[in-house]
Amino acid sequence: MNNKKIVIVGGVGGGASAAARARRLDEMAEITMFEKGPGISFSNCSLPYYLGGLIPDADSIILKTPEQFQKQYNIKAIVNSEVVDVDPLEKNVRVKNTVTGEITKTDYDELILSPGAKPIMPQSIKGIDKKNVFSVRNVVDIKNIQKYLTDNKVKSVAVIGGGFIGLEVCENLVQSGKKVSLIEANSHVLGTIDDDFAQIVQKNLYDNGVDLHLEDSLIEIFDDHIRLRSGIEVKANAVIMAIGVSPETELAEKIGCKLGVTGAIAVNQQYETSVPNVYAVGDAIEVTNRLTRKKTKLSLAFPAQMEARDAIDHIYKRPIENHGVIGSQVIHLFDLNVASTGLNENDCQKNGFDYRFVTVIPQNRVGIMPDTSPIYLKLIFSYPSGEILGAQALGKSGVDKQIDIVATMITMHGHISELTHLELCYSPWFSTAKNAVNVAALVAENILNGEYEQIPVTKVRQLIEKGAFIIDAREPDEYANGHIVTSKNIPLSQFRQRLAEIPTDQKVYIHCQSSQRSYNMVRALNNLGYTNIINISGSYLELCEYEYFKDQTTDRQAIVTNYL
Amino acid sequence: MNNKKIVIVGGVGGGASAAARARRLDEMAEITMFEKGPGISFSNCSLPYYLGGLIPDADSIILKTPEQFQKQYNIKAIVNSEVVDVDPLEKNVRVKNTVTGEITKTDYDELILSPGAKPIMPQSIKGIDKKNVFSVRNVVDIKNIQKYLTDNKVKSVAVIGGGFIGLEVCENLVQSGKKVSLIEANSHVLGTIDDDFAQIVQKNLYDNGVDLHLEDSLIEIFDDHIRLRSGIEVKANAVIMAIGVSPETELAEKIGCKLGVTGAIAVNQQYETSVPNVYAVGDAIEVTNRLTRKKTKLSLAFPAQMEARDAIDHIYKRPIENHGVIGSQVIHLFDLNVASTGLNENDCQKNGFDYRFVTVIPQNRVGIMPDTSPIYLKLIFSYPSGEILGAQALGKSGVDKQIDIVATMITMHGHISELTHLELCYSPWFSTAKNAVNVAALVAENILNGEYEQIPVTKVRQLIEKGAFIIDAREPDEYANGHIVTSKNIPLSQFRQRLAEIPTDQKVYIHCQSSQRSYNMVRALNNLGYTNIINISGSYLELCEYEYFKDQTTDRQAIVTNYL
Repeated sequence: MNNKKIVIVGGVGGGASAAARARRLDEMAEITMFEKGPGISFSNCSLPYYLGGLIPDADSIILKTPEQFQKQYNIKAIVNSEVVDVDPLEKNVRVKNTVTGEITKTDYDELILSPGAKPIMPQSIKGIDKKNVFSVRNVVDIKNIQKYLTDNKVKSVAVIGGGFIGLEVCENLVQSGKKVSLIEANSHVLGTIDDDFAQIVQKNLYDNGVDLHLEDSLIEIFDDHIRLRSGIEVKANAVIMAIGVSPETELAEKIGCKLGVTGAIAVNQQYETSVPNVYAVGDAIEVTNRLTRKKTKLSLAFPAQMEARDAIDHIYKRPIENHGVIGSQVIHLFDLNVASTGLNENDCQKNGFDYRFVTVIPQNRVGIMPDTSPIYLKLIFSYPSGEILGAQALGKSGVDKQIDIVATMITMHGHISELTHLELCYSPWFSTAKNAVNVAALVAENILNGEYEQIPVTKVRQLIEKGAFIIDAREPDEYANGHIVTSKNIPLSQFRQRLAEIPTDQKVYIHCQSSQRSYNMVRALNNLGYTNIINISGSYLELCEYEYFKDQTTDRQAIVTNYL
Repeated sequence: MNNKKIVIVGGVGGGASAAARARRLDEMAEITMFEKGPGISFSNCSLPYYLGGLIPDADSIILKTPEQFQKQYNIKAIVNSEVVDVDPLEKNVRVKNTVTGEITKTDYDELILSPGAKPIMPQSIKGIDKKNVFSVRNVVDIKNIQKYLTDNKVKSVAVIGGGFIGLEVCENLVQSGKKVSLIEANSHVLGTIDDDFAQIVQKNLYDNGVDLHLEDSLIEIFDDHIRLRSGIEVKANAVIMAIGVSPETELAEKIGCKLGVTGAIAVNQQYETSVPNVYAVGDAIEVTNRLTRKKTKLSLAFPAQMEARDAIDHIYKRPIENHGVIGSQVIHLFDLNVASTGLNENDCQKNGFDYRFVTVIPQNRVGIMPDTSPIYLKLIFSYPSGEILGAQALGKSGVDKQIDIVATMITMHGHISELTHLELCYSPWFSTAKNAVNVAALVAENILNGEYEQIPVTKVRQLIEKGAFIIDAREPDEYANGHIVTSKNIPLSQFRQRLAEIPTDQKVYIHCQSSQRSYNMVRALNNLGYTNIINISGSYLELCEYEYFKDQTTDRQAIVTNYL
């Protein structure tokens, strides 16, 4: 039998993983990996950190060179080589050397497409092709950006798009001393998290000097400024486009691979395309969301690596399972970390899922330890079945852990009740005795059981405007340091002696600092026969974060006294 | 109907949780909590941090005072009050005021015993009652220790017992400038982890100046030194006993509660003892290990809190489920964190479980980011069923996360194959694209599939002594910086040209830095038909850590050149 010939298109996450896996399964295979660009096997996700100087050497982002692939794995990794055509009947690829223009032909038995996704650069934006406009896809891009910024002594940069890449670029440019404007077309940054949590992220951007423009979009680019749809002109000597990516489907389409409903390459369970012996993996393919069971696109490194591994395993007749994706993500943004997994509220609504959510704000470790900080954790679950659907977390530390635990529960089809008793590591150094996820699940279980009513902080401004009766259950000294302007201070420690002050003929909303004391008061009042009591989930801590950014950017009257 | 009278014995983790839960379910209940000591609701786990100065105020460790319990929860929390007898027929408790000696009587409908566990102070040790001998159970204890150390200008302290408390006390005393000796009767510290990983912990202790005595025990205490079973005398002006705790069963036994096989109080699924209307929770009870299904004792905060909550729920006729415990734990020790969950090798052996394990050493985040550090992760799984049984992790950062993920998988009955594809958060700031647990599971799957053979670093010394053929697959510059004395350097990048140097008539053991390159070489050689190839799991990184401590404490010849 002849040695198997495996050709791989694309030499980054998916491609390099496929090549290495193939070699591990078959020492005799002839493995060739073609990469259009000048570098293979680089850490895309690390690219922004070069702009901030955290990674001082751009070339270090290339984790393995073609020489290393050759020597260590006996894999031909050929850069500056674009696969321009495929003959699926003759089973060969035509490869163009992007430097010399020379075309060569290589045979394959199995072809793996891992072309990735390219930054969207709408030609409708005037000036999009100007030399001060960049995207962040590879090492060449970030070197070009850095060189341009330095050569032209650029002080102001506009980042277009507030997704993960846009935010990471923002942070790194601010770290390197630039004045950064961020333009986001949606009503909030980070589509993976909900509006309430996005406000906290936006506060963080604001606090770090980022000039944020929401619900606005780029119309025209000039040398020293940009113009937005709103008419606003923003100073910017350079523009970085990060509004999203689009799967590289050109070659696949050309050779007859079917695309899916999302426009990405359609594959079956084994990552086979509709063309025999042609597989596709990574950002270019359409995947299935494990929770919604709908098709989706997902540009994340880990799924790409696993898809590549599984495609190769299938080639070598190993059974694989493809359970779809849940989309776990995390981003570091100044002193804030933002992580999420599974579905957010928007996803649930779009899919017609009946759901509930809880927000809790426990400390990242025992309060008496130094350097504690709150973890804002939102847990979303199906109603009334209690299946865990998603979570979002914000905080200075520990949020990736909480979200990874929820991601694991989601993957294992966990129920809220199982999360309440989940036995996790505890020491005062690392967490509270009940971890944040346990606390969230305990509250969620109360909601499932219908034990009490709650309302999120996003509704508080409306409550105030309607003249609702709001109780602040904190101690008087906490109240004195700042409170909701119309709230009445009845501390948990006094309410039993002050029941007469709590009306029974209208709804009563109770909050404290993090919802723990208000929760106890709500339960006590319910037990006493009150049927009009509602807990403000997220309480003062989240409210201040949530409203703070709005106060800075709108003329609406502040509702929290300490920000007046 | 009269208000329910709930009496709780013990005012720390379990007791305080039970009281607060009862109040939330029943505003009218008469809840009384008796605590023998002077403080309730303190964070036991935080006690050692006062000794090191991280928590400067010992009283801050008391999270809630009796006054706060009264005001916020309308709960009577009565300190310095020991419940000395119970009349289960008349349903009342007799309480002795430990200050005045006065005895009073309180009626109950439901009684919750949460007396905790007491430090073991063997009377067989001569001098155990001397005034320079302490234990660490409550705030009074640590104040006494601190006062004694200060008043007597103590410079040398002996800590007896290398479990969690002993190690935390060690660290904190070292931080406060003491010369610390640690005496451990077993062959290694921390019974929750295996010998191989314990060696790394011991290296850490050694590096931080702790004078460690293994397989030795305390015989006699003097004013300025102690004598060990081995005859060794160790300088110590104060002794802290941390050899373990024993459940407080005296009261329970007195009133007729049955004890279990472990000597702790026996309870049913609902935490009821054998005496009607008497519940028991926390460190004093016997629990069931979820994995071995055997009875055990477990002194951890989170299970105690959940048991208390569940007991109260049962009193209020709420259904509860009691799935047993897995024992997730974490400790901070100088710059090393040590976490574990589920079963270790020793547990598996004792229970006759067929198991395998893998050790991987990925970085805590992408290698090109600053401040990366290795995570030593050991994953234990049943063979051949692939059920995840336990994990241990060591490292400067991120180990609690990896272990919490495994703890979640164990709880959800996860299989190795599910862990391989578990989609966790990734950004270069937080982890590698494949998290450490994914890497471990991928290797574990290979072991399950019988893809290659491995041997742990614990066997390498033996291999060398027997003259085994060991290949170091790292690059020549790495080899030059230190290697196993008898190893031959055949880098992964050269072996295909040097096959002639690899024997076929004897076993060949291969290692690299972290097992990744050696793994690739093993696979390639297997594919080429070699049947004599064995990977050294853990490789050079773990070997150096493992053998380092031995070299410092034994006269055996060093096997790693850079420690000669």
